[in-house]
Amino acid sequence: MAMDFGYQATSSSSSSFKETIHIYFREREMAELAIFPMNGGSGLHSYGRNSTFQRKGVELAAELINKGIAEKLDLSKFPSSKAFRVADLGCSVGPNTFLAVENIVDSVELKYKRQGLGYLLPEFQVFFNDHASNDFNQLFTTLPQKRRYYATGVPGSFHDRLFPASSLHFVHSSYAAQWLSRIPKELVDKTSPAWNKGRIHYSNSAIEVRKSYEAQFYNDMQRFLNARAHEILRGGMMALILPVCPNGTPHSQVFLNKTTELLGLCLLDVAKRGIISEEEIDSFNQPQYNATFEQVEEILDRNGCFSIEIMETLPFEKPSPMVFSSVLRAGLGPLIERHFGPEILDELFDLLCKRFEDSFSIIDPEETNVSLFVLLKRKAI
Amino acid sequence: MAMDFGYQATSSSSSSFKETIHIYFREREMAELAIFPMNGGSGLHSYGRNSTFQRKGVELAAELINKGIAEKLDLSKFPSSKAFRVADLGCSVGPNTFLAVENIVDSVELKYKRQGLGYLLPEFQVFFNDHASNDFNQLFTTLPQKRRYYATGVPGSFHDRLFPASSLHFVHSSYAAQWLSRIPKELVDKTSPAWNKGRIHYSNSAIEVRKSYEAQFYNDMQRFLNARAHEILRGGMMALILPVCPNGTPHSQVFLNKTTELLGLCLLDVAKRGIISEEEIDSFNQPQYNATFEQVEEILDRNGCFSIEIMETLPFEKPSPMVFSSVLRAGLGPLIERHFGPEILDELFDLLCKRFEDSFSIIDPEETNVSLFVLLKRKAI
Repeated sequence: MAMDFGYQATSSSSSSFKETIHIYFREREMAELAIFPMNGGSGLHSYGRNSTFQRKGVELAAELINKGIAEKLDLSKFPSSKAFRVADLGCSVGPNTFLAVENIVDSVELKYKRQGLGYLLPEFQVFFNDHASNDFNQLFTTLPQKRRYYATGVPGSFHDRLFPASSLHFVHSSYAAQWLSRIPKELVDKTSPAWNKGRIHYSNSAIEVRKSYEAQFYNDMQRFLNARAHEILRGGMMALILPVCPNGTPHSQVFLNKTTELLGLCLLDVAKRGIISEEEIDSFNQPQYNATFEQVEEILDRNGCFSIEIMETLPFEKPSPMVFSSVLRAGLGPLIERHFGPEILDELFDLLCKRFEDSFSIIDPEETNVSLFVLLKRKAI
Repeated sequence: MAMDFGYQATSSSSSSFKETIHIYFREREMAELAIFPMNGGSGLHSYGRNSTFQRKGVELAAELINKGIAEKLDLSKFPSSKAFRVADLGCSVGPNTFLAVENIVDSVELKYKRQGLGYLLPEFQVFFNDHASNDFNQLFTTLPQKRRYYATGVPGSFHDRLFPASSLHFVHSSYAAQWLSRIPKELVDKTSPAWNKGRIHYSNSAIEVRKSYEAQFYNDMQRFLNARAHEILRGGMMALILPVCPNGTPHSQVFLNKTTELLGLCLLDVAKRGIISEEEIDSFNQPQYNATFEQVEEILDRNGCFSIEIMETLPFEKPSPMVFSSVLRAGLGPLIERHFGPEILDELFDLLCKRFEDSFSIIDPEETNVSLFVLLKRKAI
């Protein structure tokens, strides 16, 4: 999943793709939009090679999607059409997105056949969406050769409309909607009670900081849901997979928040050596919010366009320190590089790996590292 | 327009996009498929900066498309849908493709409004198609900010199916369908009468060479038309713009064939200096066929799925030697680089520019440099 802070990056043949990624974090314009994608390509630190953390969720979610399609999808609700359209929002590059859409295609085909509608089997058109700065060249050149769908790429922010009205049958979005569309400006405003000095996230910060993240997340999710409500056919479905904060767990205890805090401490270590300044840390905030179950339910309820068909938690194994620091590097590397410069990356993630080695024995991810799977159906309002 | 000779290129973040373009011209496997795109990016030799030759055609064709949509498109033939889907096949990168699709969107909107159907105005979804090795990153990051359509990219060869059945309302393809899907293997077979020794095109070669190009073009066009016949709704339209050979003009007199011959002579010049070998030239053939009007009509007639609504020639001005050698470099550069290596490019195109300077005064492009515009309608068979 790449993020859109509204800044249009342009690539040129003379500069590498990574050089074209721009983040625009001028203090006074913090609320402006900018873009950063996951690491593209297929190199050591690429998202493609470091997405096993997310893939686990994709696999667990796949079974729930199969169940949901088998039990909850009503094919008779769709207008007759030769095409069944699937979108993966915040797809980044493969292979996770390819596995996810293949599973959906398989499930829908099976449903047609089981209902004796094999003769009506539609053709599948799959839309891979991410920000325009995502490495679509990589995505397109690594598409599975033997695919049973017509592949398309859709550049743009999923907080806005991306598709014609009532044109999608199934939407999938995995570990993407937790990313904020922008950093609230008060987080970098020295005069605000939400100024997040010395920290890069909300989990151990003043309540105003968390409230500011929360408000942005609520706003972004409403935009996301409203856009999808237009685009998804009545009876169409949407599977969302999100990292969350279990009800009753303090935000500071959530595994992902703890690891982000450790990343912040590593940045302070780097600052102590004079390689970056503390002001640079003050103006950096990780644009991700892990909502509680209750908050996700509240947001869906407020929106009102979708019914909740399945809502379950996805547990997962504790990753190794090495694997998880690579996961964070693939996901956050471009963002950190843009803000602090490329020279700190190796040192920073080495430090992070060491901190993970010291801490992972006392962090219990089984209770605090939880993802939420929600399968929604577009209501016929 | 990028070409697909069936070889899957992969890009990585550590290598530039150009380095990822592979052409696979082993003599014995000449008939295999491979890919080469136009020059990506926005640099000096990019297609984006060197597509004025094609843009002229786009502009002239735009007026004919406006006329065709105003007079020939029957909106009542389409099933009610909130989306009007447009595809540009062989789009390369902007700006030509953006101008072309904007013109189509404008024309269709105007038609709705003039017919008093403004209240039914559809949303537009535009599919930009080219081979997977095309620079979609460049295309996506340079999309017009204020566009009135949902943009998508479709990677793949237009000689095969790219879209669900009956899903497109208007297809546009400009200076793309003249590219062959592959080089016929007999052209590089020393035992064949079609062996094209010492030449890179058919225009001054043995009749067997031209027949071989012709057969490939007929085959490719049937694949192209059959795929589109499935994808375009009944009543939907397709605008094709192709460089052609006017009836009665010998192939060797056609402006584009003459310039290709001059390119072949420049390659021989380079070979004389020992920088490349004559065998390398023997195994290189420019995969483009410029059909006669009659041949295009015959192909459309044989296919039978489309009626010809407008068929006109597009004249154009003689380009300057400098401009036209840049145009050829943008279009053929990646192909030549892959076959002969990157070191010959500057010298080769300098030589070509000089040959153009010597020859352009005696080449009369007004008679021999002609493009064909055909507006087709999908028959309701």
